[in-house]
Amino acid sequence: MSASPYKQLEQEFKRLHAFRGALSLLRWDAAVMMPRGSADVRGEQLAALETEHHALLTSPRITRLLDRAQANTQGLAEWHISNLREMRRQRDHAIATPVSLISRLAKATSHAESKWLEARRQGRFEIFAPALEEVVQLVRDKAALLGQALNLAPYDALVDEFSPGISSTDIEALFKVLSRRLPSLIREVISLQDQHPRLPLNGKFSASKQRALVVEIMKAVGFPFDRGRLDESEHPFTEGVPGDIRVTTRFDPADLFTGLLGALHETGHAMYDLGLPQDWRDQPVGRDRGMALEESQSLFIEMFICRSRAFARYLKPLLEKHFAVTGPEWEVENIYTNLTRVRRSLIRVDADEITYPLHILLRHDLERKVLAGELAVRDIPTAWNAGMEQRIGIRPANDTEGALQDIHWAVGSFGYFPSYALGAVIAAQLYESLRGEVPELDEEISRGEFGGLFGWLRKNVHGVGAKVSVNELLKDATGKPLSASPFVRYLEGKYLEGAASSVAA
Amino acid sequence: MSASPYKQLEQEFKRLHAFRGALSLLRWDAAVMMPRGSADVRGEQLAALETEHHALLTSPRITRLLDRAQANTQGLAEWHISNLREMRRQRDHAIATPVSLISRLAKATSHAESKWLEARRQGRFEIFAPALEEVVQLVRDKAALLGQALNLAPYDALVDEFSPGISSTDIEALFKVLSRRLPSLIREVISLQDQHPRLPLNGKFSASKQRALVVEIMKAVGFPFDRGRLDESEHPFTEGVPGDIRVTTRFDPADLFTGLLGALHETGHAMYDLGLPQDWRDQPVGRDRGMALEESQSLFIEMFICRSRAFARYLKPLLEKHFAVTGPEWEVENIYTNLTRVRRSLIRVDADEITYPLHILLRHDLERKVLAGELAVRDIPTAWNAGMEQRIGIRPANDTEGALQDIHWAVGSFGYFPSYALGAVIAAQLYESLRGEVPELDEEISRGEFGGLFGWLRKNVHGVGAKVSVNELLKDATGKPLSASPFVRYLEGKYLEGAASSVAA
Repeated sequence: MSASPYKQLEQEFKRLHAFRGALSLLRWDAAVMMPRGSADVRGEQLAALETEHHALLTSPRITRLLDRAQANTQGLAEWHISNLREMRRQRDHAIATPVSLISRLAKATSHAESKWLEARRQGRFEIFAPALEEVVQLVRDKAALLGQALNLAPYDALVDEFSPGISSTDIEALFKVLSRRLPSLIREVISLQDQHPRLPLNGKFSASKQRALVVEIMKAVGFPFDRGRLDESEHPFTEGVPGDIRVTTRFDPADLFTGLLGALHETGHAMYDLGLPQDWRDQPVGRDRGMALEESQSLFIEMFICRSRAFARYLKPLLEKHFAVTGPEWEVENIYTNLTRVRRSLIRVDADEITYPLHILLRHDLERKVLAGELAVRDIPTAWNAGMEQRIGIRPANDTEGALQDIHWAVGSFGYFPSYALGAVIAAQLYESLRGEVPELDEEISRGEFGGLFGWLRKNVHGVGAKVSVNELLKDATGKPLSASPFVRYLEGKYLEGAASSVAA
Repeated sequence: MSASPYKQLEQEFKRLHAFRGALSLLRWDAAVMMPRGSADVRGEQLAALETEHHALLTSPRITRLLDRAQANTQGLAEWHISNLREMRRQRDHAIATPVSLISRLAKATSHAESKWLEARRQGRFEIFAPALEEVVQLVRDKAALLGQALNLAPYDALVDEFSPGISSTDIEALFKVLSRRLPSLIREVISLQDQHPRLPLNGKFSASKQRALVVEIMKAVGFPFDRGRLDESEHPFTEGVPGDIRVTTRFDPADLFTGLLGALHETGHAMYDLGLPQDWRDQPVGRDRGMALEESQSLFIEMFICRSRAFARYLKPLLEKHFAVTGPEWEVENIYTNLTRVRRSLIRVDADEITYPLHILLRHDLERKVLAGELAVRDIPTAWNAGMEQRIGIRPANDTEGALQDIHWAVGSFGYFPSYALGAVIAAQLYESLRGEVPELDEEISRGEFGGLFGWLRKNVHGVGAKVSVNELLKDATGKPLSASPFVRYLEGKYLEGAASSVAA
């Protein structure tokens, strides 16, 4: 007797999981270990494995097995049925984009990426524009095909790839709230912070000492160094699979926090991946629930946990131990002040947690207009600069610190930006419930204990995998649908606390 | 019009080349970078990629294209026709072993490897014997199937996988010569060396300083660090592909030469791979000509070039520079004496170049008898110890330094050992011709110039790829068929030079 269609599918997706793990290692190596001159060789290896992964996933065999398994789900438990749904989802996404379009996109984005690098060096968007125009046209085709196949509007289809189940309507509603409150909040917070000047944390902090500090904290957080690594790369990232998870960061000898918070942001991703349901680790239902939720977990650690007074309390003796620092600037309150400084800034990746979503809103607005044909690619810089002025209140001096700062569009990642802001919104909603259910959280964090935190996250987020949609997960975890209010409440509570007391004083 | 069958095959094999490159990186990472606990995850990734590689290579499509391309080779140049022959060879080897047998072998060898480790720890072969017995039976099946498919005797079919075109008859003839001369040569050399005691090269040599020395020499040799790496691992090895080639070594702080010569041995492999015909680098005809030739190239650098007086001259000022060493023991002649010391020894990988082939002859004799059923697996240690006594004149005290020292049989690599000794024989034959054609070789080496050496090797060996058989390659390069005489002449000339002079004195 041969195995059931469902069992056969599990075998096939186990193999696809192994392929994705291999691809992830090839990317990790390219960013961390690979010799400078070997990019062409690696490109061929990645292309060959990606092509094969796509061919396996879209094979008639998989389609046939899916049809048969979904026609008769008797005897399958809830997890199995969710797994089938996720298998189908992966296959539908993959098959909607023909191989010829994928390979044209691969060529166009590879060209656009090199033009983007050149344009950045010269600070001139027009060098990049024609190549981006080509990418935009292909992404439009892809969005139309995906939309048809998934029965979604084109932009929603792109978003669905990164943040499954979240619609434009959801995004617009959330972003409207942020767009109304954040600009005025920034003004209030900056004026408040200007009344309480911080002492800068100057010094020379060697990479090896910073690394020792980061490793000690990552161990306390629960990162398993016997099944994972910490390395350095130009930009922090996480690659690998549960069982061999690898995070990177970048150490700046003049700044203690860039490397630490970069590593802890990535540790947030890693802990999510590590907490995914063990029994399903090589199956679609055992994967993360998309980029918005991924980002919620990294921001949760970096922003909500690590940029807190409780964490500053935990950090103080560690800084003394690793760097032998003393003086008033190394007191808890000044460390916290440094961790929570708000400033109007031009560069997204350096932005604080209030300004950051506004960077996203701008990009979201522009990418929708470009895809809809309402904004010409060559006019992006003008629209960008005006949007920065209007939303954040500063204007880039050149395109390198303006419309050329992100790689996303060059590599065809339209519909990805919203997940960053969605992540913050989701994290805040989870955080509000967590604080209600784990009242001793601050106490634990200030002692360097992260068990209560991850116990809650594992039960309510990580262990759910891709079993339900983001919205259902949030409803189960917090009792409420996705909403921006907890995020606004969180920012106001955290950044205006001095305002209340100064009024009272 | 669609591409010709030949052109389509080139595309398919380009893809297979990319798969092999990815597999090689996964292995490199497992030995150099992977966290200790991640072996299970990596095992799944390797198995998935290997299975897919095998499926692609043995697909009906490849067979059909090969039949069509070989039926009409008009318009194809010599290189194309050789490429077709090598494609067929790879496919024939792959298809001869059914997937079910491959997967049974994978399981049996994985079991045998862990039993081998346990047996080594306890020094008791009998712990390993039942698992090895299972491997032997499966290897017998494989050899029979391969033999049928390739029209070769079973053992020859196994050898053909590692050293294509070399038959048992060739091996027996060469090994007979070695077996006759080497035991007496060892006696003569040891007695001669005992008359000229060496000064030991004692000291503490830090890994970082050793690395700096090795990098400087590898750069002089021509290793491209912008498209390759040097790392540390438990045993030295070479992985990767031309364009991203990675060698490893192991540094012993008490011994200057282990790490250096390990790295230079591997650099010999790397330089061979780097010299393979550029235009064919992703095609079967552009690959190395098997393990015997690979080993000839690594031994060429390690033994023939680096254990020479000319190299000792080059090395002396480098040692002074990197380790600030002085004194009579750091004079050229004493460095050379240390590099060429001959001793009866139990462990193959530590053996000098005269003793080494005798280790191989023993293994070759035993593995043939075991496969033929003339020697029971459980009787291997007795036969091993007797063979060591007879051939090399010493006896292991336990199985760990005896029949348990090599991993090869545990992992099913029967027919591999001969390639080590064949490599030495081939290297000597090439060396004799090279010396005739590049008379300034010693002068160049002592100045740290390796251009003449690699110019000759690239023209006569590396650049030939897999275009012709090992025998043809040797005839083209040296004018003579494969023979053990140059090796014996080389050893006698190098190690008995003092004898002649002491007689003369």
